[in-house]
Amino acid sequence: VSDATWTLHPQLAADTHPVARLGLSDVLLMDNAANPWLILVPRIAGAIELIDLDEADQHRLLGEIALAGRVLRRLHHPDKLNIAALGNVVSQLHVHVIARFTTDVAWPRPVWGATPPRPYGADDRLAHIEAYRLAFSDAAPRTAS
Amino acid sequence: VSDATWTLHPQLAADTHPVARLGLSDVLLMDNAANPWLILVPRIAGAIELIDLDEADQHRLLGEIALAGRVLRRLHHPDKLNIAALGNVVSQLHVHVIARFTTDVAWPRPVWGATPPRPYGADDRLAHIEAYRLAFSDAAPRTAS
Repeated sequence: VSDATWTLHPQLAADTHPVARLGLSDVLLMDNAANPWLILVPRIAGAIELIDLDEADQHRLLGEIALAGRVLRRLHHPDKLNIAALGNVVSQLHVHVIARFTTDVAWPRPVWGATPPRPYGADDRLAHIEAYRLAFSDAAPRTAS
Repeated sequence: VSDATWTLHPQLAADTHPVARLGLSDVLLMDNAANPWLILVPRIAGAIELIDLDEADQHRLLGEIALAGRVLRRLHHPDKLNIAALGNVVSQLHVHVIARFTTDVAWPRPVWGATPPRPYGADDRLAHIEAYRLAFSDAAPRTAS
Protein backbone atom coordinates (compact mmCIF):
# COMPACT_ATOMS: atom_id res chain seq x y z
CA VAL A 1 0.00 0.00 0.00
CA SER A 2 1.33 3.39 -0.91
CA ASP A 3 -1.11 6.24 -0.99
CA ALA A 4 0.74 9.16 -2.51
CA THR A 5 -1.77 11.70 -1.24
CA TRP A 6 -1.58 10.58 2.41
CA THR A 7 0.27 12.81 4.85
CA LEU A 8 0.58 12.50 8.61
CA HIS A 9 -1.62 14.90 10.57
CA PRO A 10 0.57 17.68 12.03
CA GLN A 11 -0.76 17.13 15.56
CA LEU A 12 0.22 13.46 15.46
CA ALA A 13 3.61 14.45 14.06
CA ALA A 14 4.07 16.96 16.87
CA ASP A 15 3.18 14.49 19.65
CA THR A 16 5.28 11.56 18.43
CA HIS A 17 8.51 10.32 16.92
CA PRO A 18 8.66 8.02 13.88
CA VAL A 19 9.59 4.41 14.60
CA ALA A 20 8.88 2.16 11.63
CA ARG A 21 7.03 1.85 8.35
CA LEU A 22 4.92 -1.30 8.16
CA GLY A 23 3.02 -2.57 5.13
CA LEU A 24 -0.04 -0.44 5.83
CA SER A 25 0.78 1.80 8.78
CA ASP A 26 3.42 4.14 10.02
CA VAL A 27 4.39 3.35 13.61
CA LEU A 28 4.98 6.32 15.89
CA LEU A 29 6.21 6.56 19.48
CA MET A 30 4.08 8.82 21.66
CA ASP A 31 6.44 11.23 23.40
CA ASN A 32 5.25 10.32 26.88
CA ALA A 33 7.64 8.31 29.02
CA ALA A 34 4.83 7.53 31.49
CA ASN A 35 3.88 4.51 29.32
CA PRO A 36 5.37 2.69 26.34
CA TRP A 37 2.85 3.92 23.78
CA LEU A 38 2.81 3.29 20.05
CA ILE A 39 0.45 4.79 17.50
CA LEU A 40 -0.32 3.12 14.17
CA VAL A 41 -1.46 5.36 11.34
CA PRO A 42 -2.60 3.58 8.18
CA ARG A 43 -1.35 5.43 5.12
CA ILE A 44 -4.81 5.77 3.59
CA ALA A 45 -5.74 9.31 2.63
CA GLY A 46 -8.97 10.49 4.21
CA ALA A 47 -9.44 7.46 6.48
CA ILE A 48 -11.26 8.33 9.71
CA GLU A 49 -13.19 5.30 10.97
CA LEU A 50 -11.67 1.84 11.31
CA ILE A 51 -14.94 0.28 10.21
CA ASP A 52 -14.88 2.21 6.92
CA LEU A 53 -11.70 0.53 5.73
CA ASP A 54 -12.33 -2.30 3.34
CA GLU A 55 -12.12 -5.70 4.97
CA ALA A 56 -8.66 -6.49 3.61
CA ASP A 57 -7.23 -3.26 5.05
CA GLN A 58 -9.04 -3.89 8.37
CA HIS A 59 -7.34 -7.27 8.58
CA ARG A 60 -3.95 -5.81 7.65
CA LEU A 61 -4.34 -3.11 10.29
CA LEU A 62 -5.36 -5.69 12.88
CA GLY A 63 -2.26 -7.72 12.01
CA GLU A 64 -0.11 -4.64 12.55
CA ILE A 65 -1.88 -3.85 15.85
CA ALA A 66 -1.13 -7.39 17.00
CA LEU A 67 2.49 -6.97 15.92
CA ALA A 68 2.81 -3.71 17.87
CA GLY A 69 1.27 -5.42 20.89
CA ARG A 70 3.76 -8.27 20.66
CA VAL A 71 6.65 -5.80 20.37
CA LEU A 72 5.50 -3.92 23.48
CA ARG A 73 5.02 -7.17 25.34
CA ARG A 74 8.43 -8.50 24.38
CA LEU A 75 10.25 -5.31 25.38
CA HIS A 76 8.26 -4.21 28.43
CA HIS A 77 6.29 -7.18 29.83
CA PRO A 78 3.21 -5.05 30.61
CA ASP A 79 0.37 -6.16 32.86
CA LYS A 80 -2.19 -5.20 30.19
CA LEU A 81 -2.36 -3.84 26.69
CA ASN A 82 -4.74 -1.02 25.86
CA ILE A 83 -5.82 -0.78 22.21
CA ALA A 84 -8.02 2.06 21.03
CA ALA A 85 -9.17 4.01 18.00
CA LEU A 86 -10.70 7.22 19.36
CA GLY A 87 -10.00 10.17 17.07
CA ASN A 88 -11.99 12.78 18.95
CA VAL A 89 -9.19 15.33 18.75
CA VAL A 90 -7.39 14.23 15.56
CA SER A 91 -9.84 12.56 13.22
CA GLN A 92 -7.15 11.03 10.94
CA LEU A 93 -7.45 7.28 11.63
CA HIS A 94 -4.86 6.21 14.19
CA VAL A 95 -4.76 3.36 16.68
CA HIS A 96 -3.20 3.55 20.12
CA VAL A 97 -1.35 0.46 21.38
CA ILE A 98 -0.24 1.10 24.94
CA ALA A 99 1.62 -0.95 27.54
CA ARG A 100 -0.05 -0.60 30.93
CA PHE A 101 1.29 -1.50 34.34
CA THR A 102 -0.54 -1.76 37.62
CA THR A 103 2.14 0.64 38.89
CA ASP A 104 1.75 3.28 36.16
CA VAL A 105 0.57 6.73 37.13
CA ALA A 106 -2.88 6.51 35.52
CA TRP A 107 -3.71 2.89 36.42
CA PRO A 108 -6.45 1.70 36.24
CA ARG A 109 -7.80 4.74 34.43
CA PRO A 110 -7.21 5.23 30.69
CA VAL A 111 -4.02 7.13 29.91
CA TRP A 112 -5.54 9.87 27.76
CA GLY A 113 -5.47 13.14 29.64
CA ALA A 114 -4.77 11.36 32.92
CA THR A 115 -1.60 13.33 33.56
CA PRO A 116 0.38 15.84 31.50
CA PRO A 117 2.70 14.04 29.05
CA ARG A 118 6.20 13.45 30.39
CA PRO A 119 8.48 13.73 27.33
CA TYR A 120 11.39 11.31 26.96
CA GLY A 121 14.89 12.59 27.51
CA ALA A 122 16.85 12.54 24.25
CA ASP A 123 18.99 9.50 25.09
CA ASP A 124 16.06 7.56 26.48
CA ARG A 125 13.95 8.34 23.43
CA LEU A 126 16.65 7.21 21.00
CA ALA A 127 17.21 4.01 22.97
CA HIS A 128 13.49 3.21 22.91
CA ILE A 129 13.15 3.94 19.21
CA GLU A 130 16.16 1.80 18.38
CA ALA A 131 14.81 -1.09 20.44
CA TYR A 132 11.38 -0.83 18.77
CA ARG A 133 12.94 -0.69 15.30
CA LEU A 134 14.92 -3.81 16.00
CA ALA A 135 11.86 -5.60 17.39
CA PHE A 136 9.66 -4.63 14.43
CA SER A 137 12.26 -5.66 11.86
CA ASP A 138 12.79 -8.88 13.79
CA ALA A 139 9.12 -9.89 14.00
CA ALA A 140 7.04 -10.68 10.94
CA PRO A 141 3.42 -9.51 11.03
CA ARG A 142 0.97 -12.40 10.91
CA THR A 143 -0.92 -10.72 8.12
CA ALA A 144 1.46 -10.45 5.18
CA SER A 145 1.42 -7.17 3.29
CA VAL B 1 -18.48 -20.80 18.58
CA SER B 2 -19.90 -21.96 21.85
CA ASP B 3 -17.56 -22.18 24.79
CA ALA B 4 -19.47 -23.98 27.53
CA THR B 5 -17.08 -22.82 30.23
CA TRP B 6 -17.39 -19.11 29.40
CA THR B 7 -19.40 -16.89 31.73
CA LEU B 8 -19.84 -13.14 31.67
CA HIS B 9 -17.79 -11.29 34.30
CA PRO B 10 -20.15 -10.12 37.09
CA GLN B 11 -18.92 -6.52 36.85
CA LEU B 12 -19.77 -6.38 33.15
CA ALA B 13 -23.14 -7.97 33.91
CA ALA B 14 -23.79 -5.36 36.60
CA ASP B 15 -22.92 -2.39 34.37
CA THR B 16 -24.87 -3.44 31.29
CA HIS B 17 -28.01 -4.96 29.81
CA PRO B 18 -27.96 -7.83 27.29
CA VAL B 19 -28.78 -6.88 23.71
CA ALA B 20 -27.87 -9.63 21.26
CA ARG B 21 -25.89 -12.82 20.79
CA LEU B 22 -23.66 -12.69 17.71
CA GLY B 23 -21.61 -15.55 16.30
CA LEU B 24 -18.65 -14.91 18.59
CA SER B 25 -19.67 -12.17 21.01
CA ASP B 26 -22.44 -11.20 23.35
CA VAL B 27 -23.51 -7.59 22.78
CA LEU B 28 -24.28 -5.56 25.90
CA LEU B 29 -25.67 -2.05 26.36
CA MET B 30 -23.71 0.03 28.85
CA ASP B 31 -26.21 1.50 31.28
CA ASN B 32 -25.12 5.07 30.68
CA ALA B 33 -27.50 7.28 28.75
CA ALA B 34 -24.77 9.88 28.25
CA ASN B 35 -23.64 8.00 25.11
CA PRO B 36 -24.95 5.10 23.02
CA TRP B 37 -22.37 2.56 24.16
CA LEU B 38 -22.17 -1.11 23.26
CA ILE B 39 -19.77 -3.70 24.66
CA LEU B 40 -18.82 -6.86 22.78
CA VAL B 41 -17.66 -9.81 24.84
CA PRO B 42 -16.32 -12.79 22.88
CA ARG B 43 -17.54 -16.02 24.45
CA ILE B 44 -14.03 -17.45 24.80
CA ALA B 45 -13.19 -18.65 28.31
CA GLY B 46 -10.06 -17.04 29.72
CA ALA B 47 -9.57 -14.53 26.88
CA ILE B 48 -7.90 -11.32 28.05
CA GLU B 49 -5.90 -9.76 25.20
CA LEU B 50 -7.32 -9.22 21.72
CA ILE B 51 -3.96 -10.09 20.22
CA ASP B 52 -3.95 -13.49 21.90
CA LEU B 53 -7.04 -14.67 20.02
CA ASP B 54 -6.21 -16.83 17.04
CA GLU B 55 -6.36 -14.95 13.76
CA ALA B 56 -9.74 -16.37 12.75
CA ASP B 57 -11.33 -15.21 16.01
CA GLN B 58 -9.62 -11.81 15.71
CA HIS B 59 -11.21 -11.41 12.29
CA ARG B 60 -14.61 -12.56 13.54
CA LEU B 61 -14.43 -10.11 16.43
CA LEU B 62 -13.42 -7.30 14.09
CA GLY B 63 -16.40 -8.13 11.89
CA GLU B 64 -18.68 -7.89 14.92
CA ILE B 65 -17.06 -4.61 16.03
CA ALA B 66 -17.75 -3.23 12.56
CA LEU B 67 -21.33 -4.45 12.74
CA ALA B 68 -21.84 -2.76 16.13
CA GLY B 69 -20.35 0.43 14.72
CA ARG B 70 -22.73 0.32 11.75
CA VAL B 71 -25.69 -0.25 14.07
CA LEU B 72 -24.73 2.74 16.22
CA ARG B 73 -24.20 4.86 13.14
CA ARG B 74 -27.52 3.87 11.62
CA LEU B 75 -29.48 4.58 14.80
CA HIS B 76 -27.66 7.61 16.20
CA HIS B 77 -25.64 9.27 13.41
CA PRO B 78 -22.67 10.00 15.71
CA ASP B 79 -19.89 12.44 14.88
CA LYS B 80 -17.26 9.81 15.74
CA LEU B 81 -17.02 6.21 16.84
CA ASN B 82 -14.70 5.25 19.69
CA ILE B 83 -13.49 1.64 19.70
CA ALA B 84 -11.35 0.34 22.52
CA ALA B 85 -10.15 -2.80 24.28
CA LEU B 86 -8.79 -1.63 27.64
CA GLY B 87 -9.50 -4.17 30.38
CA ASN B 88 -7.67 -2.41 33.20
CA VAL B 89 -10.55 -2.90 35.61
CA VAL B 90 -12.20 -6.05 34.22
CA SER B 91 -9.61 -8.19 32.47
CA GLN B 92 -12.15 -10.43 30.67
CA LEU B 93 -11.75 -9.46 27.02
CA HIS B 94 -14.38 -6.92 26.02
CA VAL B 95 -14.49 -4.22 23.38
CA HIS B 96 -16.19 -0.86 23.76
CA VAL B 97 -17.97 0.57 20.71
CA ILE B 98 -19.24 4.03 21.56
CA ALA B 99 -21.12 6.71 19.64
CA ARG B 100 -19.58 10.11 20.30
CA PHE B 101 -21.03 13.54 19.60
CA THR B 102 -19.31 16.90 19.66
CA THR B 103 -22.11 17.87 22.03
CA ASP B 104 -21.73 14.97 24.48
CA VAL B 105 -20.70 15.73 28.03
CA ALA B 106 -17.20 14.26 27.82
CA TRP B 107 -16.27 15.47 24.32
CA PRO B 108 -13.48 15.46 23.21
CA ARG B 109 -12.17 13.47 26.17
CA PRO B 110 -12.63 9.68 26.35
CA VAL B 111 -15.86 8.65 28.07
CA TRP B 112 -14.36 6.36 30.71
CA GLY B 113 -14.61 8.00 34.09
CA ALA B 114 -15.38 11.37 32.53
CA THR B 115 -18.63 11.75 34.44
CA PRO B 116 -20.62 9.44 36.70
CA PRO B 117 -22.79 7.05 34.64
CA ARG B 118 -26.31 8.32 34.00
CA PRO B 119 -28.49 5.16 33.98
CA TYR B 120 -31.28 4.87 31.44
CA GLY B 121 -34.84 5.21 32.61
CA ALA B 122 -36.68 1.89 32.25
CA ASP B 123 -38.73 2.89 29.19
CA ASP B 124 -35.80 4.51 27.47
CA ARG B 125 -33.62 1.48 28.13
CA LEU B 126 -36.17 -0.93 26.70
CA ALA B 127 -36.68 1.23 23.64
CA HIS B 128 -32.95 1.36 22.99
CA ILE B 129 -32.49 -2.37 23.45
CA GLU B 130 -35.39 -3.13 21.15
CA ALA B 131 -34.00 -0.81 18.47
CA TYR B 132 -30.54 -2.39 18.74
CA ARG B 133 -31.96 -5.90 18.54
CA LEU B 134 -33.85 -5.03 15.41
CA ALA B 135 -30.81 -3.42 13.86
CA PHE B 136 -28.52 -6.36 14.68
CA SER B 137 -30.98 -8.92 13.36
CA ASP B 138 -31.46 -6.78 10.28
CA ALA B 139 -27.78 -6.35 9.42
CA ALA B 140 -25.57 -9.25 8.44
CA PRO B 141 -22.01 -9.15 9.77
CA ARG B 142 -19.45 -8.97 6.98
CA THR B 143 -17.53 -11.83 8.54
CA ALA B 144 -19.80 -14.85 8.53
CA SER B 145 -19.82 -16.91 11.70
